[in-house]
Amino acid sequence: MQTLEAIFARSSYRGKYDPTPVPREHLQQLLEAGLSAPSGCNKQTTSLIAVDDPDILRQLNALTECKVGQTAPAMILVLTRRIIAYRDRTYFVQDYSAAIENILLAAVSLGYESCWVEGQVTDEDKIGRKMADVLGVPEEYELVCYLPIGKAANDIRRPKKQSFSERAWFNGFQKAE
Amino acid sequence: MQTLEAIFARSSYRGKYDPTPVPREHLQQLLEAGLSAPSGCNKQTTSLIAVDDPDILRQLNALTECKVGQTAPAMILVLTRRIIAYRDRTYFVQDYSAAIENILLAAVSLGYESCWVEGQVTDEDKIGRKMADVLGVPEEYELVCYLPIGKAANDIRRPKKQSFSERAWFNGFQKAE
Repeated sequence: MQTLEAIFARSSYRGKYDPTPVPREHLQQLLEAGLSAPSGCNKQTTSLIAVDDPDILRQLNALTECKVGQTAPAMILVLTRRIIAYRDRTYFVQDYSAAIENILLAAVSLGYESCWVEGQVTDEDKIGRKMADVLGVPEEYELVCYLPIGKAANDIRRPKKQSFSERAWFNGFQKAE
Repeated sequence: MQTLEAIFARSSYRGKYDPTPVPREHLQQLLEAGLSAPSGCNKQTTSLIAVDDPDILRQLNALTECKVGQTAPAMILVLTRRIIAYRDRTYFVQDYSAAIENILLAAVSLGYESCWVEGQVTDEDKIGRKMADVLGVPEEYELVCYLPIGKAANDIRRPKKQSFSERAWFNGFQKAE
């Protein structure tokens, strides 16, 4: 699929998934897409785990009350480390967000749906740490997001968005030219 | 260009740019690509300004000591608002990072180079606020990043990255299968 087509076609899918397994070759490509994202000062703070083992998927899904992606045949878990990059600043959130967007676009281009699930794993319930423990992830890595991966079994709905002119301008704030 | 090809081809370009103007049609597509990114709870916290007016570009470039992109014929400025999305959490960094990655990939697919310049505009020197003032951006918006846009005039260099197996695994931490 062409890049701009994938960018405009991507949406957050919260429906049921077809149970057909995702080929390892495709999971590999999705991980490579994530690792190809830029990172602040090239610190490469993001790591990724793809899960397609049904037993591990069940354990991970049992930990979250979030219903999104529970039927997906695969999942990508996003890990980060808070590494200092520029002056005293970290860019790990920017780094993993760019990696996630790459994975979401690669998924669309390979015919899959996904959804960026972050709030439910990083808030005070610490679901992310429990999921990380299932995967043997050491404490210096934070599990910040999971991405269900699979073919859609339901219709795809698109959120309503503000118009172009409310959010994008030329040569000055709210200028059309 | 195919999506995966663009994802793997993208790199941060810090060389000189060809002065040929970027057609408005392409800038429009880059802005639309940015706005198509997901945002936490669909809060759409990111706004964008494309600049191709040579006088405004000169004013913006004069504000930063960063040499990256000073010769580019266009620039996209990334604005954000800290809007609460889920419980007491904000996702504006995730939102603008996904928007930036979309723009970078769309740029590659249209034959342009760019570079994510953030640290130099958001640190304590507050260059971002000075750039925002040139564009008439009100205080509730923060200018967090600029992206030079244009054709490369120099060779493209790629950063060295860790190997796949150091950062991506299957079904468990540091597991190959």
